[in-house]
Formats: sequence, structure tokens, C-alpha cells
Amino acid sequence: MKLLLATRNAKKLVELQRILGGVSLVGLDDVPAYEEVPESGLTFADNALIKAREGAARTGLPTVADDSGLAVDALNGMPGVFSARWAGRHGDDAANLELVLAQVSDVPDPLRGAAFVCAAALASPDGREWTVHGEMRGRLVHVPRGTGGFGYDPIFVADGETRTNAELGPGEKDAISHRGKAFRALAEIIRTELG
Amino acid sequence: MKLLLATRNAKKLVELQRILGGVSLVGLDDVPAYEEVPESGLTFADNALIKAREGAARTGLPTVADDSGLAVDALNGMPGVFSARWAGRHGDDAANLELVLAQVSDVPDPLRGAAFVCAAALASPDGREWTVHGEMRGRLVHVPRGTGGFGYDPIFVADGETRTNAELGPGEKDAISHRGKAFRALAEIIRTELG
Repeated sequence: MKLLLATRNAKKLVELQRILGGVSLVGLDDVPAYEEVPESGLTFADNALIKAREGAARTGLPTVADDSGLAVDALNGMPGVFSARWAGRHGDDAANLELVLAQVSDVPDPLRGAAFVCAAALASPDGREWTVHGEMRGRLVHVPRGTGGFGYDPIFVADGETRTNAELGPGEKDAISHRGKAFRALAEIIRTELG
Repeated sequence: MKLLLATRNAKKLVELQRILGGVSLVGLDDVPAYEEVPESGLTFADNALIKAREGAARTGLPTVADDSGLAVDALNGMPGVFSARWAGRHGDDAANLELVLAQVSDVPDPLRGAAFVCAAALASPDGREWTVHGEMRGRLVHVPRGTGGFGYDPIFVADGETRTNAELGPGEKDAISHRGKAFRALAEIIRTELG
């Protein structure tokens, strides 16, 4: 079976490939027909579905897409779907992270809970759709630590950990991450529904 | 009856005085004993109560305090209690407003609902406490308009209006504002409970 993952991120491709095993996975760089769609949804699931539908419609392949971000308790679950552009410009990880730290600077430790959340969607060319969620609970630290990962990883410590996500090895992070959980749930659906 | 309004904002003093009529109102600049307390609450009501309690404890006067901000639907009710320092520095109205506009730049008009929210608290030196809320529903525009008001007024149009809050006269704004509503509700409590 051939499957499209609607991403240009090679790391995500490798991660999903490892989880899916025998499936033949391609990315957006392999399917020129795909047109970027604005991530205009107000939920992670909406955004993942938008991308998965576009992929299935353009290529005729079952398509997986994901959207994820950081949900801070003291910010009512934001930055949420705006995680990648919280400070106003898309993809400025350092500015986004510094802004969140500044916004919660007066919030004491017991109230600094947060979660990385991932929605992963699967759209089949026959019109069927599935959405799953993965979550990694933890808390925000006060000063960034670590050089691994990306995004908000340097300010997030997962439950049961003392190291920030940016201080974990890639394998350690995959095992507990929101995206790992969502992709594993989707792998099960792919096997049973499309296999 | 003498009452403390825990603010250094002369405009708020005048507004509450107008609503309360015969009560003798003093502000923080009249009571040197008051010490600034950090607004560390996660709700407007918490912050208003913190200030009202401090005022009543320090001065022995029944004390009114308020906390208010902008709650944007697409931001899950944020900036909320962080309205005055949303961009990271306290009181930078222009930066706060520009950041909110950038964060919701892709959010279409039907989903740009927002509300100005005010909690007003009254603490009596005998330990009794009351909290009331006022809300002004409306929506965010895309480009700031008007020079009146302060804070997020230039990007907010109240329900039933076509002008932004910053284009309204002070009297027009008071009549429909979150703070006006909360203060009028508190005035009723002051008359019946402390009068």
C-alpha cells in the first residue's frame, strides 16, 4: 500500500515510516500536484483534516496529515493552533517561546501546567476520514534548557521527567510525544481499515 | 460614607464617583498606607479581590477594585488577565494590540468575536466581600481606527455599533462598557449592604 504524508518535514516522514513499517510512504515533495492550503482551522483536528483531504483529492492516495502545538493551562489552552506564529511571524521559534515565557512570567509553578497536543487525520480517496489525538502533559520551566527538538521544546518538561524536551534524545521524545501517540493510533486504523 | 477605589487612574475615579453619587470616594493617591500587590490571579475576579482586600485591610475603608481585559473567542478568551502585558512588557498598548491582530490575522470575520470583560470587587473591613461582572460583546476589526479610549479600543467594535470603541465619545462608551456595567451593579450592592 502507498500512503501520502502531507508534510515537507523529513523528520516526520521518517518517524511515521518507522511506526507504519511495511507501508510505502511518500511526502509532499514527491507529489507536485499538491497545493498548499492555509491552516485556517480553529482546532488541530480541523487543520489536519484540511491537509489530509487536499492530499487525497489531489493524488488519489490515502493521506495522513497532522497539526500540533502547545496548550498552556494559564493561557486557556493557547497558543494552540497559533503555536507556530504566536509572536506574529510564522516559524520564529525563539520569539514564540520568549513571548510565552513573558506572558506567564508571574504564574507560579503549580499553575504552569501545559500539554503538547497533536491531531492526526487520515483521508481516504473514497471519502472516509479518521482523526485521532495524542497528548503529552507537563509543565513550563522559567528558563529555556537544551538544544534538541524544536519549537517550545526548551521550555517544556514532560510529566515524569526532569529534563526539558530539548534535553531528551529523539528516541526518548518519540516514545512519549504527542505526535508519536497520535501516529501510533493512526497506524492501527490504517492497518485495520485500509490494510 | 467614605469608600476607597483601589486605583491611581483618575478617569476611573471620576466614572465611579458619577455612578455612586453621594458617596465620598478616595483613590490610592489619598491613602499612603496602601502597598501595591501583584495581580497574580488567573481570573479578573481574583485580581479585583486581591486589590480590594488589600485596600480594606490597610485603610479600614470599604474598598472597590476592578480588573478588566479583552477576551478573544479565537484565542480561547485570552489575552484575558494578561491583557495589559500580552506582548511581554506591561502597558505597551500598541504592541499588545498589534500582537492580537497578528495572532488572529487568518481568522475570518464570523469567528472574530470578542468581549471586554470587567470584574469589580468590594471588600468591607468587616470581612464581607462581593464580586460582580460586566461584559461588552463585539468583534475585532482588521485595522485599528480612532484615537479615543486606550488599550484595545481601536480594534474593537461593540455589538450594535459600526465605530470602534476608540471612535466613541467617553459618555457613549461608559453607557455600554464592561466597566460601566460592573460599577453600576456594585453601586447597587454598596447602597443596599453598606448604605
